[in-house]
Amino acid sequence: MAIKLHGKNFIGADRSANSASTLRGRDPRSGEELEPHFYEADASEIDRAVEHGQEAFREMRRRSPEERAELLDLMAEEIEAVGDEIVDRTMQETGFPQGRVQGEMGRTTNQLRMFAEVVREGSWVDARIDRPQPNRRPIPKPDIRRMLISMGPVAVFGASNFPLAFSVGGGDTASAIAAGSPVVVKAHPAHPGTSELVGEALARAVQAAGIHPGTFSMVHGANPQVSLALVRHPGIKAVGFTGSLKAGRAIFDAGSNRPEPIPVYAEMGSVNPVFILPRALRQRREELVDGLMASVTLGGGQFCTNPGVVVGLGNGDLKAFVRSLGERASATALCTMLHEGIRSGYEEGLNELEATGDVRFVARGSSSNGSTATPGTTAVLTASARAFLAKKRLQEEVFGPSTLVVSCTDSAEIERVAYSVDGNLTATIHGTQEDLEEFADLVHLLENKVGRLIFNGFPTGVEVCASMHHGGPYPATTDLRSTSVGTAAILRFARPICFQDFPQTALPAELRDRNERGIWRLVDDQLTKDDI
Amino acid sequence: MAIKLHGKNFIGADRSANSASTLRGRDPRSGEELEPHFYEADASEIDRAVEHGQEAFREMRRRSPEERAELLDLMAEEIEAVGDEIVDRTMQETGFPQGRVQGEMGRTTNQLRMFAEVVREGSWVDARIDRPQPNRRPIPKPDIRRMLISMGPVAVFGASNFPLAFSVGGGDTASAIAAGSPVVVKAHPAHPGTSELVGEALARAVQAAGIHPGTFSMVHGANPQVSLALVRHPGIKAVGFTGSLKAGRAIFDAGSNRPEPIPVYAEMGSVNPVFILPRALRQRREELVDGLMASVTLGGGQFCTNPGVVVGLGNGDLKAFVRSLGERASATALCTMLHEGIRSGYEEGLNELEATGDVRFVARGSSSNGSTATPGTTAVLTASARAFLAKKRLQEEVFGPSTLVVSCTDSAEIERVAYSVDGNLTATIHGTQEDLEEFADLVHLLENKVGRLIFNGFPTGVEVCASMHHGGPYPATTDLRSTSVGTAAILRFARPICFQDFPQTALPAELRDRNERGIWRLVDDQLTKDDI
Repeated sequence: MAIKLHGKNFIGADRSANSASTLRGRDPRSGEELEPHFYEADASEIDRAVEHGQEAFREMRRRSPEERAELLDLMAEEIEAVGDEIVDRTMQETGFPQGRVQGEMGRTTNQLRMFAEVVREGSWVDARIDRPQPNRRPIPKPDIRRMLISMGPVAVFGASNFPLAFSVGGGDTASAIAAGSPVVVKAHPAHPGTSELVGEALARAVQAAGIHPGTFSMVHGANPQVSLALVRHPGIKAVGFTGSLKAGRAIFDAGSNRPEPIPVYAEMGSVNPVFILPRALRQRREELVDGLMASVTLGGGQFCTNPGVVVGLGNGDLKAFVRSLGERASATALCTMLHEGIRSGYEEGLNELEATGDVRFVARGSSSNGSTATPGTTAVLTASARAFLAKKRLQEEVFGPSTLVVSCTDSAEIERVAYSVDGNLTATIHGTQEDLEEFADLVHLLENKVGRLIFNGFPTGVEVCASMHHGGPYPATTDLRSTSVGTAAILRFARPICFQDFPQTALPAELRDRNERGIWRLVDDQLTKDDI
Repeated sequence: MAIKLHGKNFIGADRSANSASTLRGRDPRSGEELEPHFYEADASEIDRAVEHGQEAFREMRRRSPEERAELLDLMAEEIEAVGDEIVDRTMQETGFPQGRVQGEMGRTTNQLRMFAEVVREGSWVDARIDRPQPNRRPIPKPDIRRMLISMGPVAVFGASNFPLAFSVGGGDTASAIAAGSPVVVKAHPAHPGTSELVGEALARAVQAAGIHPGTFSMVHGANPQVSLALVRHPGIKAVGFTGSLKAGRAIFDAGSNRPEPIPVYAEMGSVNPVFILPRALRQRREELVDGLMASVTLGGGQFCTNPGVVVGLGNGDLKAFVRSLGERASATALCTMLHEGIRSGYEEGLNELEATGDVRFVARGSSSNGSTATPGTTAVLTASARAFLAKKRLQEEVFGPSTLVVSCTDSAEIERVAYSVDGNLTATIHGTQEDLEEFADLVHLLENKVGRLIFNGFPTGVEVCASMHHGGPYPATTDLRSTSVGTAAILRFARPICFQDFPQTALPAELRDRNERGIWRLVDDQLTKDDI
């Protein structure tokens, strides 16, 4: 039996519905609107959510890391406890198949538990201690100790394409709470019911942990003014966002142009170019077709790391590769896109590429006779490197299951393409050892353009671990220093605080002589877990 | 014999003087203009400087860390080789006494050598490796490795108040080059001759190291358009700045509003509040007067960490303290301020405070009959906490040798003041153990407001070490994650790059199985120096 949804905003422990303006979820397969109505937050609700967050922040600094870790573990448990209800509603609101949603649910709870472990282990605070030298000449050296602490309350924007893993209880929320930041989530209007179910699970976890209820709030809104009001609130100290370039830039601008500017971590568009070098193409052509098609169509092509551009040397091998790719695309079933906005954006993007007169459609359409209200058809396009280098539009993301094969006349042109691409989350190189030697500059060129370089693989499928970097130069993100996936994501919401000549009792546990938390610390420039 | 200055812009190895627009240094003591004329950079010179920087950046990635370390050491050596000439010109252009300039020279070369050691040691790159699990179900785990690399060319703005340590060859330049970033310096127009002498030393180091000459460029300009053009150049990837709130904010806005936004690390205004708790004041009143006056007047009050606000409980002890402070200020000699702009800004700031009607001048003036063209007089002011809390102007920095004593009616008001202050570089608490227990919340309140908390000391005198944090919430800086002093300053110009399934030969040395650089690496979540 489905849980009855209330449609209200979460203002700490309160459930609030001030506004007459509402929004509803929609089943993208049927096109039908779903119950209930969700109330858009008004200005006073946003104010209260942030104010509760500020109170919770002050309380959070007095809590131990263990208490934050327990909260994160409880959040994972409470989400699992709702389990099937969340999966069902997510499927309804996104059109994603069950396996995908279940997989994403597992990733979401794993992320929460991973950050619990990061907080428990504790070395993420990058503690540094320089011991005093009272007899130093000409002036004594003081006792200096420094660690990372939370910046304050964080606004998190749920992403439509990861309704669990990058939404209400996703990576941004998990890493912010791990850092010690209360969170105010702006729920994505394409999955408000999923958001409420996860939101209630998180709120129960906060209550069970006995933590200040302002640690988690959530507001609804389809109107951009809700988002902007949240970002502009002086009590918000950082923002996590995943979505389109247009929305991400607007939020970045709002954050930067505040009287007090704040860090805005917006993860946005990316074409994730795949460079297929000549020997690899000759040796593994059909395997590359298989791998690329699987990556292009994964999740309806709605992954941030979807490979939207393929670059190769325009020889017979590439022609045969494109032909195979086109055949495979034409034989691919229609997919259901996340919502009408994404569907129409995808079609418009393809039309704009067509209108340039520089691309040829090898495949656009589908042999499938399935039916859905938001159909996405797999498209394969080609263009010359000359056109690609000349027209900016060809380099811009078309969000959906399409890929543009760029054909180069020689090796130098492949490098020119690498040099010209915008910032991206990823770039991929397929090559043999000999290819890599011939194109030795390619790695250096591409590492300035992307956050992650993949060799002989595909960009979709982002491993969640300490060494993952899911970020990249603009327009992939607004902050190339940051990752939104993996343990380093916690660093986005932290900043250093330094104590000079403080008595032991007034220092945080992490910085006292006795290393009671057993963390790695840089003491007089040496990493150690020893006491002082 | 003084070195003959050419007044030209440094465009890599070229010395360029395109523009008819020039500026000159001035001796602040005599008010006289100094030879020669310095040519403001025009648009084409800025373009060329950045383009050389881009070329140098591509070359730098192919250089070993050892080569960067040698370059930094050579820079220190070449500055020392010019030694006295630099000291003389700095004294002329700033009015600083010889001891101060010599001390700052030592700090500057120490910083360059410190960053050489950071680069040699190498662990700053935060290398992280997760080993593959080819048999993992449902999908194999790839091989992921990540480290920090340079963002690209950096624009550095010299600070007027540290003509050596935070100017051409100062901390920003040293940390940027250590990270692998070529630098384009915008020389401060108040010390153009000092800038040229240091610039030539750095250029000789670049040449001696056999590094691309675009690694160091320097442009002159008093017109804000020169600064903005540099920040807006698409080849510039980050900015380091120390100066006023107005200029810093303009540069931050220019960096954030670019088509591709970039990190801008502007270190700006700060009042560095000093909280003197009742028992400490009773026990150490005259010692506190001594320490505070020394800190307020250090370097003509022109330190970023100058204590501009003192907060205490308005009892008889505080009255006696203020009286003593006033007597000491009145007996303090006139100082020479750095330039006429700073002198007039200081006087205007004091006049604005007077105009609020809420402050009383305990001392303003000097018994000294010394003479200088840019006199600064030590000022002591008082105001009630009520006025301080009500009028924003009282909280804003007055750059110069003045301090405002804020008198609170009770302990709660002391905490309200702490809660209300803007972001600052530092806050200081003077107290006994008993004071600290009574004001237990003060540390928590202040740690959200500042970068560094000092106990029973004074904020001036910033130790250069790994644990130093010289930064803080806005308006102290535009990026509270960053420090401009200490080894962590290198992180401002670095960002992660991640390699997935790359062959050993194509990986950077820091990420290969064999840990040939002997650095700390996080391998499968464990810190180790072992090979894999």
